[in-house]
Amino acid sequence: MFCIVGLGLCDEKDITLRGLEAVKSASRVYLEAYTSILMIEKARLESFYGKEVIVADRDMVESEDGSNEILKNADKEDVCLLVVGDPFGATTHTDILIRARQLGIPTRVIHNASIMNAVGASGLQLYNFGQTISLVFFTETWKPDSFYDRIKENIDGGLHTLVLLDIKSDSFFFRGRKVYEPPRYMTVPQAVSQLLEIENMRREGVLDPDKTLAISMGRVGGFDQQRILAGPLCSLLRASPEDFGPPLHSLIIVGKRLHHLEVEYGELFAEDLGEAIAVAEEDGRNPELGQQGRKGGRELWRKVAHEAYGVALS
Amino acid sequence: MFCIVGLGLCDEKDITLRGLEAVKSASRVYLEAYTSILMIEKARLESFYGKEVIVADRDMVESEDGSNEILKNADKEDVCLLVVGDPFGATTHTDILIRARQLGIPTRVIHNASIMNAVGASGLQLYNFGQTISLVFFTETWKPDSFYDRIKENIDGGLHTLVLLDIKSDSFFFRGRKVYEPPRYMTVPQAVSQLLEIENMRREGVLDPDKTLAISMGRVGGFDQQRILAGPLCSLLRASPEDFGPPLHSLIIVGKRLHHLEVEYGELFAEDLGEAIAVAEEDGRNPELGQQGRKGGRELWRKVAHEAYGVALS
Repeated sequence: MFCIVGLGLCDEKDITLRGLEAVKSASRVYLEAYTSILMIEKARLESFYGKEVIVADRDMVESEDGSNEILKNADKEDVCLLVVGDPFGATTHTDILIRARQLGIPTRVIHNASIMNAVGASGLQLYNFGQTISLVFFTETWKPDSFYDRIKENIDGGLHTLVLLDIKSDSFFFRGRKVYEPPRYMTVPQAVSQLLEIENMRREGVLDPDKTLAISMGRVGGFDQQRILAGPLCSLLRASPEDFGPPLHSLIIVGKRLHHLEVEYGELFAEDLGEAIAVAEEDGRNPELGQQGRKGGRELWRKVAHEAYGVALS
Repeated sequence: MFCIVGLGLCDEKDITLRGLEAVKSASRVYLEAYTSILMIEKARLESFYGKEVIVADRDMVESEDGSNEILKNADKEDVCLLVVGDPFGATTHTDILIRARQLGIPTRVIHNASIMNAVGASGLQLYNFGQTISLVFFTETWKPDSFYDRIKENIDGGLHTLVLLDIKSDSFFFRGRKVYEPPRYMTVPQAVSQLLEIENMRREGVLDPDKTLAISMGRVGGFDQQRILAGPLCSLLRASPEDFGPPLHSLIIVGKRLHHLEVEYGELFAEDLGEAIAVAEEDGRNPELGQQGRKGGRELWRKVAHEAYGVALS
């Protein structure tokens, strides 16, 4: 049996009991390193599971030779591939499932939370989201902009857009050994700057730096490390890096069908951080904010939502 | 601390380790019965957790008196509310979080898989989904049809639509005690029939019984019970009830941007069930199907996808 196990959002405790059972009974356990390099370290998992975890990099999971190695003997014994989030978050995992089927190997998928549903932590309703987009690091010569059309479609329909930000984890060979560079994570200001760069080129009025609302989501499900910031695009561009918290981040471009209940959710923990940014945090650390928000954050968030999208306030 | 814990998709083993810790350390544990009545029984959870689980019906979670009872003393002790799927799957849960904040109670959310991301088990890519819709049971006099506009927006954009099907769990008072009727779950044929009824009224050509592809998702993440059926709407209308498996079901209306890789995923397990239905199942039970599909299911699914949406086949 070949089993892909979703590890969930943050650390070793986000695995499900069913997932843990699969890991414990497996003869070999692989950790998909490309998306999972961030928050869960191999050594920590190994000591937690009490067994060896083999790191599978992107080449391994995506190449035929590599995936054959992972799937070796999986018709006779149990092999697990661990992935951050849910197994269907990346096409790579679909490919290796197809490969297993082609080899006549039974497959199983153990689901978990991923940013695709945990984005609800923003207070925005999941059914008001349109299609999700991915934003890659621009280079001088490569600035793919098809995401702009996707955002436009969502904006035209009044819908929110979840923007997944690029992770780059380069590797090179040194003395015959593969060496990994530290991964680079796209920051929210970088993402906003790329979005506005394309708006400046295309000029179809999809994104307005001063009016379009956005929400930055950092380490969703990571409790003490979770950070949720809201404000117009320009305010997220100017905010201090510390305010966003540690990576990984995602960004939501808020749609114009924004409902007053969606605004209300963030209100009670809202905090004015100076750069016209409201914080709509959910982490249980600051219950005293529950009454009112801090430094006028509540009023600011209501005002911003009203001025941008005309959200009626009670 | 007030903590909402997502139970995931199916049974008591789908909780995360973090969620289980929260349950174990709580003074009171509530189970949200409206959405969770289906697959996880209170008694089974109680024996699994080794502690009492209090059933909270919809009235309790949604009313101020009821939610105050749940939140009682939660500023001093730990109270858990268990919900099926992810805590942000229903607005009800957002409401009780807001209520807790208003009372100055620290809150925490423990995420899990929900149909909103587990729908990837269909082989369709999550980023190709547009907005999600809910379909309620029609009555003679009440046939809300705003979902039709939402589907149209998705179809126009080439996007898939996840359709969540209604659950009805009526209760009444008998000799001063609340009595629950057995819950009714909308079946896929009922859902398809309602969709086509509105198409017949509105006649905007959004849904074509013979051409529009749909995928029925039954007990996603439920392993041996999971059933995934694909075909034109009319074939899902005519299929035998057993083919869909036990409730709960969801439905996907497949968008026209359907990619050949999305078709390929279902191919290898596809089985022709007679009513022009292909099965795109993922459960590890029938590895021998991996080579080819059964009874020409593979060819049928490819043909249907090609004829409906012109998906290019390799």
